[in-house]
Amino acid sequence: MKKHLFLTIILVSSALANAQNTVSATIQEIYKTALVDGESYGWLGHLSNQIGGRLSGSLNAQRAVEWGQEELEALSLDRVWLQPVMVPKWIRGTFEYANIETSPGNTINVPVCALGGSVATPLAGTNAQVVEVKNFEELEALGKEAVAGKFVFFNRPMQADLVNTFAAYSGCVDQRYSGAERAARLGAVGVIVRSMNLRLDDYPHTGSMSYGELPLRERIPAAAISTNGAELLSSMLALNPDLTFFLKQNCKNMPDVLSYNVIGEIKGSTHPEEIMLVGGHLDSWDLGDGSHDDGAGVVQSMEVLRLFQKIGYRPKRTLRVVLFMNEENGQKGAIEYNNKAREKGEKHVFALESDSGGFSPRGFSIDTTPEKLLAIQQWKPLFEPYLVHMFIQGGSGADVRRLKTDDNILAGLRPDPQRYFDYHHAANDTFDAINKRELELGAATMASLVYLVDHYGL
Amino acid sequence: MKKHLFLTIILVSSALANAQNTVSATIQEIYKTALVDGESYGWLGHLSNQIGGRLSGSLNAQRAVEWGQEELEALSLDRVWLQPVMVPKWIRGTFEYANIETSPGNTINVPVCALGGSVATPLAGTNAQVVEVKNFEELEALGKEAVAGKFVFFNRPMQADLVNTFAAYSGCVDQRYSGAERAARLGAVGVIVRSMNLRLDDYPHTGSMSYGELPLRERIPAAAISTNGAELLSSMLALNPDLTFFLKQNCKNMPDVLSYNVIGEIKGSTHPEEIMLVGGHLDSWDLGDGSHDDGAGVVQSMEVLRLFQKIGYRPKRTLRVVLFMNEENGQKGAIEYNNKAREKGEKHVFALESDSGGFSPRGFSIDTTPEKLLAIQQWKPLFEPYLVHMFIQGGSGADVRRLKTDDNILAGLRPDPQRYFDYHHAANDTFDAINKRELELGAATMASLVYLVDHYGL
Repeated sequence: MKKHLFLTIILVSSALANAQNTVSATIQEIYKTALVDGESYGWLGHLSNQIGGRLSGSLNAQRAVEWGQEELEALSLDRVWLQPVMVPKWIRGTFEYANIETSPGNTINVPVCALGGSVATPLAGTNAQVVEVKNFEELEALGKEAVAGKFVFFNRPMQADLVNTFAAYSGCVDQRYSGAERAARLGAVGVIVRSMNLRLDDYPHTGSMSYGELPLRERIPAAAISTNGAELLSSMLALNPDLTFFLKQNCKNMPDVLSYNVIGEIKGSTHPEEIMLVGGHLDSWDLGDGSHDDGAGVVQSMEVLRLFQKIGYRPKRTLRVVLFMNEENGQKGAIEYNNKAREKGEKHVFALESDSGGFSPRGFSIDTTPEKLLAIQQWKPLFEPYLVHMFIQGGSGADVRRLKTDDNILAGLRPDPQRYFDYHHAANDTFDAINKRELELGAATMASLVYLVDHYGL
Repeated sequence: MKKHLFLTIILVSSALANAQNTVSATIQEIYKTALVDGESYGWLGHLSNQIGGRLSGSLNAQRAVEWGQEELEALSLDRVWLQPVMVPKWIRGTFEYANIETSPGNTINVPVCALGGSVATPLAGTNAQVVEVKNFEELEALGKEAVAGKFVFFNRPMQADLVNTFAAYSGCVDQRYSGAERAARLGAVGVIVRSMNLRLDDYPHTGSMSYGELPLRERIPAAAISTNGAELLSSMLALNPDLTFFLKQNCKNMPDVLSYNVIGEIKGSTHPEEIMLVGGHLDSWDLGDGSHDDGAGVVQSMEVLRLFQKIGYRPKRTLRVVLFMNEENGQKGAIEYNNKAREKGEKHVFALESDSGGFSPRGFSIDTTPEKLLAIQQWKPLFEPYLVHMFIQGGSGADVRRLKTDDNILAGLRPDPQRYFDYHHAANDTFDAINKRELELGAATMASLVYLVDHYGL
């Protein structure tokens, strides 16, 4: 009897050990395939260099939709389709220009760009004095008298001591998003916002902004200034508070246009009704080519499905890739996807987003029940050979967060965050800033987590 | 009685918690100071841009010694000194050039650079056929008959599926280091080595090589070819095995010259005889400015001492920074430092090297007793807020490994390894490839480990 029990233990242990070996061997194959025989870098080269910046509603965004559909169709998935969605269309126009005038005729040009959604200046530009503030409290304290007829210059820098640069971004982005609305209510003629960038350099960083409920005629132009430009303006204001700032831009809001989410899927072999989603957003800002934001997430998500095919792993659950449209200025693609999914009663057991740049993967931020989080954290040792260590509770991403239910798993890939805001929404977010291996490791890390969720069926 | 015991437990627990709070607060202050008020990036800007490449024995290496001494003296340490050491002097010369001749008069230039220590070609260059091999086994199998009078082309690429790129480097570098010696013994006229680079690009990567015991007259010239050049040569050889390769370089070995390790220290307050060393190497190769290899390690090591001063932490043990000379082609500085330390009976309880690039820190590779490794691994939670997770058993570094005793601790900073070999020993290892925050986080991570070793007294 004892002997039997002993043998049983041996057999069970050995079966368990074999199962674990299979799991770690599959993960090894995923990483090896991504690094040796990957497609993500080549795809991104095309999207970035042959198509380029893909602002919602633009011709390039439409080209990107067609490209995404073609590439997914070339993978011979079970199904590829476009999901129509109306998106905002804002155009940058043909000029954006600013200078600081310290005394009549003495001007210094500074690098600026219009914020996405901003109205234009009058055709001849706007020239006015400047009040510098660090936050809305300072602005309100100044009041109408000090602000009316002037530019408001929001100059609160990102906090350098935050190791998580996304937290530093969150701590500043209200200036960009709501600064114009707040300043307009006090009678300002325009706003200049310090770029969301931890470096001192000459790139202005655009991004979304909103006028809230402000009537059309009360809206004022809003532009970002490079961090070097912000430092210069601030120090010149200290010397001469009466200097004037000149801004000229002819950006424009147009009527909404039809665009698409691009979707493809591999049907699950045993639980086809359970959907595991991977995704990034296909639109980008227009200054660079959107390689990190979010070309990287797009090609990594596509690569997850290709890696599964390449290693011959047929998922038990349906694996769906969604290339979301219009994350940057409206999230209309994510809203439409979620609405339709809920209408159809689709069950998303897992959704993983990559929208934090194509840098070396550090791990995941996970939004789920404490029990499922704990279960996922048990997989940490499987990721250690690949230098992936972070499995923390936290937000998933702007495009998948609406899919949350009481018990599903949402997650965001978390790459190393130090360089992201060097490029974010700026003209230097281009393909040359992508490292092939870092991009590929991100795709393999995503595929490995999807595989584990499918294999163990959380 | 019970009440007293309870109170005692409360008091002890609260004292322990306070102590832990102090430790994590000190580490937080170290990181904050490095990120908000750091010197490492400014120092590296000077070393890279104002001095530049610092090949052992060169004028620039001497300038770097003087700069290092001046900067350490400006920190008001307890002691700063130069340690004399004789180092090899090899000069690249005034030209290095190569082409592939597919038929008489049809040539294609390919990017090459001489390997450090190589002899020159004859003044008119060397023109010969090429045999391509992947390793020494293939070379030996070919034998003298196939090799004599030809170039040997070593073309084994770094293994892309190794996530630890240093392992991929180790798996290839024998071609560069010993290829010329092995090929010369079979009568080859020169060697061409595929650059140690995981990317396909146009930069040849230099590095050290040795002829072993080969007499002077039997030594043959050795050059690295860019990875794109290697791919081109290989595919052209497949089409035409009789093509010839032309190489011309006038590099030269000179007599050894006097140089210095640059050393500074803060005396320990209670155990001055126990030395904690931090260091990197001041010399570099000559094609770029040596920003990652190893300007980064130099300024990070200097920054450790400055951070301690800045936060007002006086170490109990002596904290010494050593800027080693001649790591790249001889390690004479490290050998001399170790010899002198042993002569004087100095006790190095801890030595930490940074020589893996100025990228985001992932952790440490640690060479010590199992007990001490375990003790260090208990500190992992203290590093998690800074995204530092790796505390693994492994080698320390070329400059500190000789200091090993039965029970001291040697360690190497381990930054993210994906991009290192994009720049290593090549013309693009320049200051613009350094990210300020990544560099600073590395310095803070080093300082935090030194602080913990000092505080807990391992």
